[in-house]
Amino acid sequence: MSILVVGTVAFDSIETPSGSAERILGGSASYFAMGASFFAPVRIVGVIGRDFPDEYIDLFRRRGIDLEGLKRESGDTFHWRGRYHEDLNVRDTIELHLNVLSGFVPELPESYRDAEYVFLGNIDPEMQLEVLRQIRCLRLVACDTMDHWINNSLEALRRVLGKIEMLVVNDSEARLLSGESNIVRAARAILKMGPKTVLIKRGEYGVLQFSDSSIFAVPAYPLEEVFDPTGAGDSFAGGLFGHLARSGDPAERGLRRAIVYGSVVASFTVEDFGVERLKALSIEDIEERYRRFVALTDFQT
Amino acid sequence: MSILVVGTVAFDSIETPSGSAERILGGSASYFAMGASFFAPVRIVGVIGRDFPDEYIDLFRRRGIDLEGLKRESGDTFHWRGRYHEDLNVRDTIELHLNVLSGFVPELPESYRDAEYVFLGNIDPEMQLEVLRQIRCLRLVACDTMDHWINNSLEALRRVLGKIEMLVVNDSEARLLSGESNIVRAARAILKMGPKTVLIKRGEYGVLQFSDSSIFAVPAYPLEEVFDPTGAGDSFAGGLFGHLARSGDPAERGLRRAIVYGSVVASFTVEDFGVERLKALSIEDIEERYRRFVALTDFQT
Repeated sequence: MSILVVGTVAFDSIETPSGSAERILGGSASYFAMGASFFAPVRIVGVIGRDFPDEYIDLFRRRGIDLEGLKRESGDTFHWRGRYHEDLNVRDTIELHLNVLSGFVPELPESYRDAEYVFLGNIDPEMQLEVLRQIRCLRLVACDTMDHWINNSLEALRRVLGKIEMLVVNDSEARLLSGESNIVRAARAILKMGPKTVLIKRGEYGVLQFSDSSIFAVPAYPLEEVFDPTGAGDSFAGGLFGHLARSGDPAERGLRRAIVYGSVVASFTVEDFGVERLKALSIEDIEERYRRFVALTDFQT
Repeated sequence: MSILVVGTVAFDSIETPSGSAERILGGSASYFAMGASFFAPVRIVGVIGRDFPDEYIDLFRRRGIDLEGLKRESGDTFHWRGRYHEDLNVRDTIELHLNVLSGFVPELPESYRDAEYVFLGNIDPEMQLEVLRQIRCLRLVACDTMDHWINNSLEALRRVLGKIEMLVVNDSEARLLSGESNIVRAARAILKMGPKTVLIKRGEYGVLQFSDSSIFAVPAYPLEEVFDPTGAGDSFAGGLFGHLARSGDPAERGLRRAIVYGSVVASFTVEDFGVERLKALSIEDIEERYRRFVALTDFQT
């Protein structure tokens, strides 16, 4: 079963305590698609500019990612420049150029409209709603968002939340959206806004999954070096959706395992700049680290 | 098999966003002993002043805690006053009165000297060494410490580390002691200082356990309200040691389960001021939450 993602395809310029990189492939849809591509076919809806290099297009193609929905427009590609602190949980946005993303209206190719697994990456909630309007049959829709949309487009975001099954956010976004500082109460408040499942990403501390009937908590895979945290959350969602689509098991057990696969993919992502580590990865590497993850967390056997 | 703990028995005066309490029972040995007492006999080595009320003595006795090693001296009991921020991970010490603790030299009753499970609570490393000198046969010795001793008594602390099996610290203490900001590298560096096992407490984010051959990661039990975080770490260590002594299983599997039991005890501790919640607790409550912990973390079955 194939997966559709709408989100940004971008240039990222990044400084971390370990080094820096200029205009490398970034954006929520890029990370998500790369992460999901190990498990199932992925289709991207997004926009790039005339400056977007063939090299990155080829990279997507080599990973079997469908680019029919990736529109190229005159103008420059969305560009984000950020700097991470010594504490990698904190980053500053230095520059943000929307470029072709400004005014973009997603338009799904006919072949995309039967998508069953849909991930609405972190973009304007109005764009997320537009994608939902164009899709015929849905099995699982999840969305991500950020403080900017919570603060400035709450009404549209609340409409998105009424239409999706799963929200994927980090802990500060969950607190901001709910107005609750305790993370359990924050998740319970968000569940009342519509989604059946709330996933809370806590970076190096792992993930919490909430539904009306259960909570699942899983630590992150401990790493001796985190090189570049960019894209961890989006590739986590990609790995999660990838495993869900591959297994076809949307029940609690399938979802929990998918969260672990997402965590595994994210743990690879942060080991190098941008998508470098994902480029060199195989599904065998992922399965091997999944087994290590089992050994890392098991206390029953 | 019985457990020996050396540490503080104190008055705590606490302000949290949820309320405040004056001169309630506190101290590392108190929390540890209360936490361990559900699983195995506990003996306390420590000192109190003439102002220490019978009510607290009775409380220890009701929990079957052996107080032969708890010395009463003329003068006042150790008193700590602290205030927690809205972010409960941050607290300020407002007052600290060592009182009878100043100049205290631990002296173990003859009946304590065959102790097999020994926990050196967070006190002066010289006192920790003195306790080790007085013990005949050891099975498992663990210790806790804090930034004050790392900064001011490093030489003595390093001697302690050379004699113990397990160090139990929080993440900032591990970073300070090792000089490494990455927590995995910090733990590896500490393992080289002597202990076979390093446990890193991360508050609401759970615990990491490192040895030469493995890593175990477990989240904390998610709570809708954290009332007072005081004593979470010490009662965690108490529950951990309690289960180890009860099960007699010091192998990796036993240790992992003990860490989960410790996490369960700590999750109860923070639900009310001081030891209030532990006073009202039964081993059945602990076993019930342990089962919930399994359900919280399991993704394999």
